[in-house]
Amino acid sequence: MLWFRNDYSEGAHEEVLKKLCETGRCHRAGYGDDEYSALAREKLRKACGMPDADIVFLTGGTQVNATVIAAMLKPFEGALSAVTGHINCHEAGAVEFAGCKVLPLPQYAGKVKAEDVQAYLDNFYADESHTHMVFPGLLYISHPTEYGTLYTKAELAALRKACDTRGVRLFLDGARMAYGLAAEGTDVTLPDIAKYCHAFTIGGTKCGALCGEAAVFAPGCMPERFITLTKQRGAMLAKSSLNGLQFDALFSNDLYKRVGEHTIRMAMKLKKALLDKGYEFYIDSPTNQQFPIVDETVYARLKEQVEFGIWERLSDGRIVIRLCTSWATDENDLDALIGLL
Amino acid sequence: MLWFRNDYSEGAHEEVLKKLCETGRCHRAGYGDDEYSALAREKLRKACGMPDADIVFLTGGTQVNATVIAAMLKPFEGALSAVTGHINCHEAGAVEFAGCKVLPLPQYAGKVKAEDVQAYLDNFYADESHTHMVFPGLLYISHPTEYGTLYTKAELAALRKACDTRGVRLFLDGARMAYGLAAEGTDVTLPDIAKYCHAFTIGGTKCGALCGEAAVFAPGCMPERFITLTKQRGAMLAKSSLNGLQFDALFSNDLYKRVGEHTIRMAMKLKKALLDKGYEFYIDSPTNQQFPIVDETVYARLKEQVEFGIWERLSDGRIVIRLCTSWATDENDLDALIGLL
Amino acid sequence: MLWFRNDYSEGAHEEVLKKLCETGRCHRAGYGDDEYSALAREKLRKACGMPDADIVFLTGGTQVNATVIAAMLKPFEGALSAVTGHINCHEAGAVEFAGCKVLPLPQYAGKVKAEDVQAYLDNFYADESHTHMVFPGLLYISHPTEYGTLYTKAELAALRKACDTRGVRLFLDGARMAYGLAAEGTDVTLPDIAKYCHAFTIGGTKCGALCGEAAVFAPGCMPERFITLTKQRGAMLAKSSLNGLQFDALFSNDLYKRVGEHTIRMAMKLKKALLDKGYEFYIDSPTNQQFPIVDETVYARLKEQVEFGIWERLSDGRIVIRLCTSWATDENDLDALIGLL
Amino acid sequence: MLWFRNDYSEGAHEEVLKKLCETGRCHRAGYGDDEYSALAREKLRKACGMPDADIVFLTGGTQVNATVIAAMLKPFEGALSAVTGHINCHEAGAVEFAGCKVLPLPQYAGKVKAEDVQAYLDNFYADESHTHMVFPGLLYISHPTEYGTLYTKAELAALRKACDTRGVRLFLDGARMAYGLAAEGTDVTLPDIAKYCHAFTIGGTKCGALCGEAAVFAPGCMPERFITLTKQRGAMLAKSSLNGLQFDALFSNDLYKRVGEHTIRMAMKLKKALLDKGYEFYIDSPTNQQFPIVDETVYARLKEQVEFGIWERLSDGRIVIRLCTSWATDENDLDALIGLL
Repeated sequence: MLWFRNDYSEGAHEEVLKKLCETGRCHRAGYGDDEYSALAREKLRKACGMPDADIVFLTGGTQVNATVIAAMLKPFEGALSAVTGHINCHEAGAVEFAGCKVLPLPQYAGKVKAEDVQAYLDNFYADESHTHMVFPGLLYISHPTEYGTLYTKAELAALRKACDTRGVRLFLDGARMAYGLAAEGTDVTLPDIAKYCHAFTIGGTKCGALCGEAAVFAPGCMPERFITLTKQRGAMLAKSSLNGLQFDALFSNDLYKRVGEHTIRMAMKLKKALLDKGYEFYIDSPTNQQFPIVDETVYARLKEQVEFGIWERLSDGRIVIRLCTSWATDENDLDALIGLL
Repeated sequence: MLWFRNDYSEGAHEEVLKKLCETGRCHRAGYGDDEYSALAREKLRKACGMPDADIVFLTGGTQVNATVIAAMLKPFEGALSAVTGHINCHEAGAVEFAGCKVLPLPQYAGKVKAEDVQAYLDNFYADESHTHMVFPGLLYISHPTEYGTLYTKAELAALRKACDTRGVRLFLDGARMAYGLAAEGTDVTLPDIAKYCHAFTIGGTKCGALCGEAAVFAPGCMPERFITLTKQRGAMLAKSSLNGLQFDALFSNDLYKRVGEHTIRMAMKLKKALLDKGYEFYIDSPTNQQFPIVDETVYARLKEQVEFGIWERLSDGRIVIRLCTSWATDENDLDALIGLL
Repeated sequence: MLWFRNDYSEGAHEEVLKKLCETGRCHRAGYGDDEYSALAREKLRKACGMPDADIVFLTGGTQVNATVIAAMLKPFEGALSAVTGHINCHEAGAVEFAGCKVLPLPQYAGKVKAEDVQAYLDNFYADESHTHMVFPGLLYISHPTEYGTLYTKAELAALRKACDTRGVRLFLDGARMAYGLAAEGTDVTLPDIAKYCHAFTIGGTKCGALCGEAAVFAPGCMPERFITLTKQRGAMLAKSSLNGLQFDALFSNDLYKRVGEHTIRMAMKLKKALLDKGYEFYIDSPTNQQFPIVDETVYARLKEQVEFGIWERLSDGRIVIRLCTSWATDENDLDALIGLL
Repeated sequence: MLWFRNDYSEGAHEEVLKKLCETGRCHRAGYGDDEYSALAREKLRKACGMPDADIVFLTGGTQVNATVIAAMLKPFEGALSAVTGHINCHEAGAVEFAGCKVLPLPQYAGKVKAEDVQAYLDNFYADESHTHMVFPGLLYISHPTEYGTLYTKAELAALRKACDTRGVRLFLDGARMAYGLAAEGTDVTLPDIAKYCHAFTIGGTKCGALCGEAAVFAPGCMPERFITLTKQRGAMLAKSSLNGLQFDALFSNDLYKRVGEHTIRMAMKLKKALLDKGYEFYIDSPTNQQFPIVDETVYARLKEQVEFGIWERLSDGRIVIRLCTSWATDENDLDALIGLL
């Protein structure tokens, strides 16, 4: 089978594994105090252009979202999110399990608009019964989104501006950050994200690591006693160096950048081939998730030889499928896939 | 420095790392459905002598305790635990964060007694206002305990019997299971634990893996939709194979057993040396945590060359320290430590 | 001022207060075991035509909704609700505070459609990643709705049928039940509601009592140890007879019916007068909440002499206002209001 | 039967009911904004000698404890309490349901000692792994305690002093406040309590009202958006005036004081009679709960004619019973009870 199901179908990049093997019997402190994590934090601060950022390494995507969001919210607040946002759809109610409501906003190819945020906030505070409602405390966005789309720098700035009118914190889910940063035509860099967000994550799991997500907080934005809160949520590893070492590897020798570039090159080759063959797309994605529309014949042919996802069945019988490239995509596999399409 | 601080101060055993390296670019399903995890589950079922056990791999110790306990409890129930139990002391209130009360019981070298459990249950149901109280729904024990001590088979049987009088589920925290199984003189095997407990964990993190805890449920005891609950608690890895592969390695070629045996051999050599030198012990531990009592002079000398834990300062000025051996303990280091004592 | 702001702006009906006064020094058990509550339960069972219903009296509307819904849901489930449902909008996230997600459905004048419920359920179980999502476990509806509208018997039957296809429980919020039952043209009786719902509430607070909501469960539908759960949520009164006595009064001598009829007579007189004067309505409500659209001039005039609610400002500058009648509405006040319009 | 079971076995004092009847059809705002509540708050501020206190009226004892405690705690904190404290024993885990751990302290006749609090705090911060533990954030005490005992002014001062060493807030549960204030020999007044506590409650339910507990916060101590939090916990009444009116009545014409004095006079008459007859007491209580020890014969005789509580069965076969007086205790009933003893 050719694997294009998602970007977490393999283990980890060789350079990541090498780091783990080299240090297998080296001694280190636990619970986040190890030197490998300290080193990785320094590298990430540099990459973000934010020397005073607070950085904590957690293990999984839903975990880091729910832990950070619930910790940043006050108990009377909830999290604004595109109705299609991962926290609203595919995290089994993790934010609500932590006691917080997700407040859905309209979505446009997975993105939210600053004017919708502003309108929500203005309407909320204009509503004379708002003390009986969940206060909007944080705006959750993802970059790339669940649809592979990206914000522009101007859009991020506008979102932050809207947030600031009412003290709302801006949180960006960067589970696929490497692929967003490497996309053609994007004007958003890691320092831009650090500049506009109160907190954001840099994904390891989907970008070449076995596991690991970095939670990055702008100065002053890390919740009080956040380390204790991660323990309380079961999100603190005894061997915290597992995450630290992997991020150290990802941010050494430009690995994170190389992972992103390879993946995007594979995705764009696929996209171009599909366009050349006349396929329509459900959405115009500049990143590693591509959503071509196929008919039953192609679908049946692919199903026998390719692992991929079904996104939606259209009323006309055609099917939106999702094809993902990743750091692990072999170009020979890609060529074989293109041959099948 | 000589490292005897704990059993999670290093990375992972070479055989575990090798498995991760060999499979780095192999494709697999995510979220627990991968074949590596399936294979590991089969090996664990065999080791437990329980072919129908339900097994789920989670990542960390506090995570697996809080997730399993909260899922097994009904909303009006709490978890009985020795007052010194890990869930009552050192998990930052993770069980309470999930909405459940820990109900403390007297402890005897970290263990609970069946008669205390029975008395608690009898008194509870005899109390005419018990509908206003938290119902005891589960008994949490650890093996080895936080003090390194072990239950006997007869004690486990008695605890289960007490639990059964009132429908209480017996849950055993086996974060250091390898060291309990390998202890000299223990009559408790993995199949015994599987026989007496409704659910238990088999620890990877402290026994040679980078991370990973196996939650094992006796047939019929896994909570409904437990997989969704792990997602909700942020405890499900996209790359679930990370845990599965490691448990596959630990339960191949007797690695888990070898890890336990090496660690115990190191611990007993240390214990014997300490006894020979006339040290008193705070507690008589048959496993990898040893609690000798040292005076200020020894303490000061050790502090310069050894990483170890402080357990308690006695009123006479002496200090109870904790020395841990592990799968990674080098015998040369141990000899050097003995030389210092 | 003329008070038409809402239906909880006064104290309680004289017959309710009389009952409280007559029994002020009579002795009774606490925590729900009092004879007054037992008597009231009997009367409600009779009124519902359900001799085996389990009935528990709680104190407030948000309290009874959140307590019953969270207790009926399994931990992996959430509550379907019209996007305009009270639990989704105006209960400050009480359901989410209890750890459960509200799953919004389209609304039609405050109501949900059985086909939307069915489609939601079908899509959910057809989605191959539904184990990562919140399971729909309960459908919340209100009758009258937040817009004063009512379900028909056929609509209730259809909702129940859709629910039953996937084991979803049907819960009806009857905070304004008296006004729904007394509405002109409704074909829904209390026994109908008891027949179609797994659980529902009968409101006291907005229907003539000082406080008090009855939670009614069809046989077998009351959650295990529900009394303990109400205590845990702080919803159990020591002097439970406060609620019981009031429901006893409301269901003696047809008081609940009389309260409903008076209120509806007042509302329909108001509605007819408004129609006669050519006012448009935002919604066609058959119950005690009326939503006429007024211009700025009328709005300004009313504001000086009437207490009422603002529902929405339309883009053309006109204003949707809410005028409520209640058990306490004085017909002279109503005539004065009509004179002002 | 003679009723001495507890202090919430009757309805409400005539003066409380009169106030409710007089205002039955008067209009007022809802959700805490009514003038009756405003008036009652003024009276309570005066009685507390704290003109800037924030006061919120809730409905029940467990409700006010759990709502205030959880709101005052940060998410990494728990509540210290005597092991016998009401929140630790008889509130069905309400504090834990809100996600917070109760941290038990030794009890002495239901009271905690400042030196134990100080030792707990010192040990906690000296423990090098305290970031893995629940931080002590609030000290819960009750006055009178669950055993009817009272703190002295010096004891309250010492507790506050200990709390202040580590930023711990002092919360006093005054469910039976009237009886504490009226006790013979106490040197603690309401202004003293206001002076030493960050927050405390003044109980209505057990002191003559149908329901209602006042939460009083020293200036600056009310949690942010506390009103929204009460809504979220289902603790806000639409007809908030129900609580406000009752507290208005209780704090008019010295009713709260008279209620306390009558109750204490009854209790002391009972205590004296029991002492004269040679009964032993389980505890020396100066308030309305008396705990005489009776033998089987007396117990059997009482059971036929008196409603009372069983506190504990002693190993010698004798029984500790609880006899409560209240605002509703009839002196003739008391004389009859004394005759039976």
